[in-house]
Amino acid sequence: MKPVNASIITIGDELLIGQTVDTNSAWMAEELNKIGVWVKRRVAVGDVWDDIWGALDEEGQKADIILITGGLGPTADDITKPLLCKYFGGRVVVNDQVLTHVKYLFEKVFRRPGPILERNLKQAEVPDVCTVLMNERGTAPGMWFEKENKVYVSMPGVPHEMKGLMKKEVLPRLQRHFKMPFIFHQTFLTYGVGESVLAEKINEWEAALPSHIKLAYLPHYGTVRLRLTGIGDDQNKLEAELEELGKLLRPLIQEWLVIDDDMTIQQVVAKLLKEKKQTVATAESCTGGYIAHLLTIDAGASSNFKGTVVAYSNEVKEHVLNVSHQTIESAGAVSEEVVKQMVKGTLEELKPDFALATSGIMGPDGGSEQKPVGTVWIAVGNNKKIEAQVFHFRFDRLRNIEQTAHTALNVLRKFILQNRD
Amino acid sequence: MKPVNASIITIGDELLIGQTVDTNSAWMAEELNKIGVWVKRRVAVGDVWDDIWGALDEEGQKADIILITGGLGPTADDITKPLLCKYFGGRVVVNDQVLTHVKYLFEKVFRRPGPILERNLKQAEVPDVCTVLMNERGTAPGMWFEKENKVYVSMPGVPHEMKGLMKKEVLPRLQRHFKMPFIFHQTFLTYGVGESVLAEKINEWEAALPSHIKLAYLPHYGTVRLRLTGIGDDQNKLEAELEELGKLLRPLIQEWLVIDDDMTIQQVVAKLLKEKKQTVATAESCTGGYIAHLLTIDAGASSNFKGTVVAYSNEVKEHVLNVSHQTIESAGAVSEEVVKQMVKGTLEELKPDFALATSGIMGPDGGSEQKPVGTVWIAVGNNKKIEAQVFHFRFDRLRNIEQTAHTALNVLRKFILQNRD
Repeated sequence: MKPVNASIITIGDELLIGQTVDTNSAWMAEELNKIGVWVKRRVAVGDVWDDIWGALDEEGQKADIILITGGLGPTADDITKPLLCKYFGGRVVVNDQVLTHVKYLFEKVFRRPGPILERNLKQAEVPDVCTVLMNERGTAPGMWFEKENKVYVSMPGVPHEMKGLMKKEVLPRLQRHFKMPFIFHQTFLTYGVGESVLAEKINEWEAALPSHIKLAYLPHYGTVRLRLTGIGDDQNKLEAELEELGKLLRPLIQEWLVIDDDMTIQQVVAKLLKEKKQTVATAESCTGGYIAHLLTIDAGASSNFKGTVVAYSNEVKEHVLNVSHQTIESAGAVSEEVVKQMVKGTLEELKPDFALATSGIMGPDGGSEQKPVGTVWIAVGNNKKIEAQVFHFRFDRLRNIEQTAHTALNVLRKFILQNRD
Repeated sequence: MKPVNASIITIGDELLIGQTVDTNSAWMAEELNKIGVWVKRRVAVGDVWDDIWGALDEEGQKADIILITGGLGPTADDITKPLLCKYFGGRVVVNDQVLTHVKYLFEKVFRRPGPILERNLKQAEVPDVCTVLMNERGTAPGMWFEKENKVYVSMPGVPHEMKGLMKKEVLPRLQRHFKMPFIFHQTFLTYGVGESVLAEKINEWEAALPSHIKLAYLPHYGTVRLRLTGIGDDQNKLEAELEELGKLLRPLIQEWLVIDDDMTIQQVVAKLLKEKKQTVATAESCTGGYIAHLLTIDAGASSNFKGTVVAYSNEVKEHVLNVSHQTIESAGAVSEEVVKQMVKGTLEELKPDFALATSGIMGPDGGSEQKPVGTVWIAVGNNKKIEAQVFHFRFDRLRNIEQTAHTALNVLRKFILQNRD
């Protein structure tokens, strides 16, 4: 059985001039995969009548499901609704349920003073040839059209509105409308190995994969995720196949395997800490709070993350973390001695079980011959010992920050594994 | 004169299953705009021969320039190079310059022990019908093809490699190859107003815009950027037109205008601080270091950012920031009293000119009837006064963190403007 294919069309000039990064499509693809829909193409077009019309024509020929986001706002550059109305041969009518909802939002939720603007009330106008999907989180409703056995769904581009509509309306309706195969992903997170070496190591195993199971290499800040994707009619058979393949793969990649699950490094760290009810705190210079941010993205962080001192200035290193002024003067802020003292100060002041510290030169300025841009010291420790390592990255500023944070979390992960009892 | 049109094709299953967010396209579009190239479409396809081939055919009909990223890695799922070779009717040959470069990278930069793998050496193989563009930052070269007056360029998908190739090779070559018009953007950053109210306010001004100048509304975490885009042959005339339009627009949006430049809120804050050589430090509970991260993304942050205490646990609030245990017990950690004490503690311990503090409930758990998810207290102050405000957001966890951080930076901006002398 073949998967049901989808195309995602995103509408808006902002996607084409570089002011907005499209995060919607990735989320949508992931959710669609879970119900057996394979995203075949993603297309972004501007707020241009002919370009939107052409994209509907083309994607309608290529996919069974066409999901459209954006272009539904209350301003003049949003032309998608009249276009869809014409495309599907309908006329615009006021939907009473949406009108009541728009009034409710403006009066009770947004609490904006004064009468509701005409342009906001117009959000209740919809083509009479669509099924209206109520958008609890905003004023622009979703619209479900059917044409020549294809399904077209239009949604607003605001991420949390689109997500609400997808979960509550679109995904359940698609599951009722189509007969779907099963799509399974199994992910293996590795650290410390490049994709070429990995590919060499698993060469024979990869060559023997059956045609309905695909392998992808996904490198990301020092990690490579190996992702197996299987498609089939029989859920149990497919699961058994992937499990069997996993059993053969694991010994081949053992030395780099972090976890055989689709988790981030920080989620693995949080899992390790929770198992023993232990805590971590960080002292960040060059990463500027980014490690703390990663550790607090997921809910429930407070049970194992105590806090961070972002010691961006040397004064803060000295005054809050008790780093010796003399050490900074003699060894420099980016040095083994200073990161070790930062760990020590964090253990003393924030009282976690484990402490992690970073100090480095992220660029583009600030490098020297001895310590070029990308030089980073990372230290980790507990009340018994403190260890430090130097790394050399070679990217731009933001990438260096991200790479340092991910590397530091892996240093922490390894230290916890070795010193958790 | 019409702009030269481009399409961006991104290749890779990871873009279609939701494991990777495409940040390359936005960056490419921005750079292309600067030289007068208008990105008309962006298309993502998987590692599937027919889909890549079809995308080349289609985008070749729609655009003058077709930029292709991804699919050039050393693993078996990367099929782009043989496909391009066949598509443009060439045969694969070894390029000596690339071979030397690959060897250099493995021996001198990556310093990987052992012989270079065959699959890495194969990166030096290129179709004999392309111009090879040297990729200083990685092993996969760029490839420039011409066919029926169209230019096709293939680049690796690794962001910093693609960026290096674009800047050094692709953009300068495109400028020599095509006669480009001028494209100008002028951005106005507003805060604290929705796009509908804004649209209503500038209704007449917007209706009078000439056809070669377009307006876009770009909402983002409480800000709305109004972006004017003009296209024309005469640089001076276009600049003068945009300046004139700006003069008419400014008085209409004055009450919400932050700056008439394409800057982020944190860049505006940094600019204000630099002007008077003042500093800021933050105390973050619910934002978990994200404000510190925003303040350190741009280079040169160290001159006005001293540091942060991420006081995620109450112990850290008490011990490091001197927040009273009794206040936390009586008023709760998410309260006016606690954020004010966090500001006071930050001023004492980190000694900045201004301090900013956040405490809130980001969700999905932890809400109560009195303090539902999305309740956030933000305080700001200096040695003379400390002010606090409560906000109510209604998003998911990550969005609440981001929204709180941006709102807090705007609270800080306003306080600095009122109290900077």
